[in-house]
Amino acid sequence: MKILWLFAHPDPRSLSGALKEEGLRTLEAHGHEYRVSDLYAMKWNPVVDATDYGHDPTDRLHVGPASEHAYTHGHLSPDIAEEQSKVTWADTVIIQFPLWWYGMPAILKGWFDRVFIKGFAFGHTDPETGRPLRYGDGRLTGKRAMVITTAGARAATLGPRGVNGDLNDLLFPLQHGTLWYTGMSVLPPLLIPSADRTTPTAYATAATRLRERLHTLPTTDPLAFRHQNTGDYDDDLLLHPHLTPTPAGPSAHYTAPPPPHHP
Amino acid sequence: MKILWLFAHPDPRSLSGALKEEGLRTLEAHGHEYRVSDLYAMKWNPVVDATDYGHDPTDRLHVGPASEHAYTHGHLSPDIAEEQSKVTWADTVIIQFPLWWYGMPAILKGWFDRVFIKGFAFGHTDPETGRPLRYGDGRLTGKRAMVITTAGARAATLGPRGVNGDLNDLLFPLQHGTLWYTGMSVLPPLLIPSADRTTPTAYATAATRLRERLHTLPTTDPLAFRHQNTGDYDDDLLLHPHLTPTPAGPSAHYTAPPPPHHP
Repeated sequence: MKILWLFAHPDPRSLSGALKEEGLRTLEAHGHEYRVSDLYAMKWNPVVDATDYGHDPTDRLHVGPASEHAYTHGHLSPDIAEEQSKVTWADTVIIQFPLWWYGMPAILKGWFDRVFIKGFAFGHTDPETGRPLRYGDGRLTGKRAMVITTAGARAATLGPRGVNGDLNDLLFPLQHGTLWYTGMSVLPPLLIPSADRTTPTAYATAATRLRERLHTLPTTDPLAFRHQNTGDYDDDLLLHPHLTPTPAGPSAHYTAPPPPHHP
Repeated sequence: MKILWLFAHPDPRSLSGALKEEGLRTLEAHGHEYRVSDLYAMKWNPVVDATDYGHDPTDRLHVGPASEHAYTHGHLSPDIAEEQSKVTWADTVIIQFPLWWYGMPAILKGWFDRVFIKGFAFGHTDPETGRPLRYGDGRLTGKRAMVITTAGARAATLGPRGVNGDLNDLLFPLQHGTLWYTGMSVLPPLLIPSADRTTPTAYATAATRLRERLHTLPTTDPLAFRHQNTGDYDDDLLLHPHLTPTPAGPSAHYTAPPPPHHP
């Protein structure tokens, strides 16, 4: 396999850094190819700006059209183009980060803001039906993605009854709204909990779980998100009423519930 | 009232910029005081880094303890301290942004990553019970917060049946996991939909809705999130089974559903 490993922690000596190294060793041992985007080490700029697009600053900036135009005409900022070439090369993208305020660190959020632009990651239509290709169908269909996240909280507090909300619901904007939106198959996330109190035993458990998930990267069933274009949504892109549970929520957009994400 | 208006759009000539100006005029007309953090105009740095904390770079960086230490000892980066002083001053925080990849632009996510640190925004305990003060009780209790977001999508597609997921679920990490976590009362978000196709009529409607929401800032009922410390969660911080709906999801953490967010 060809794996792009996105990494977003400021210190390589962290638990996150140790797990990344463990992961890369595992991939190597299995004969996979990989590339790493270590966003802190790269001093990645996460801020969308007119200069990304060679945009005339006296003109009002419409981010969507400006980014699509720059992509199509080949005058995107080179750091963005380089990341896009890595995504194109990869068949699998690992997204590893510490859970900060129940989401991605800004440096990583801004990787998606800047790299996943119209023309590259979305904005295509089915030539036969004219319908937009997204949520299960899109430019990145055929690729797999998996989140690996370390969190200070205990695992159960990030479960269905946990005070913090369920991890899959917290990751819904990323897993469904970003990765699945572009057509990628999203594997269940790997949660490494209680990350502020890691003992050698806890580290060994975490490393074992990581290696297992990397062994099964090609075969693990992805999250069962609904496809936009297979009849579950009406022409206004609303879920048919008989498919909408009460109460509604992210689970409405799955055909089967995700597996539990803690051991 | 004393309002801090956080703003995160790269172009002041945008729809977002026009609505911000409309909002500030409205606040002024009502005799409110306000301060603005226009993150792009300030060239805000959203990336958490050891230099924020005067941290010795030869030592491993533990973000939580390092940031708390710097806060307590007064050697935080001055740009962070300045934003904290604005939060302390304000009784209400407006968080305005275009919805990018179903969340905040990176520059704004990194405002929370850097400003809402332990000691300032959380990490306190009840002196009587010793329990952590969070989710409804915390350092920022008594303050109100409201999200204003512009989105390219049509309103219904961000509703309970919409293909993108419900806006309140997409904002759960911010509204519940960040604002409510620190004790703030979170008003229902104001969604300005179809933002890529704004006509003069649509702008007039959006401006009217914005003015109404600003008029009622002090009186609007906040989202009915459950408090961590009033018996809905057990000692392991899990919701009692009889309070967990099926399917579970963000709605489990409300005592009453949020109002519809589109007209």
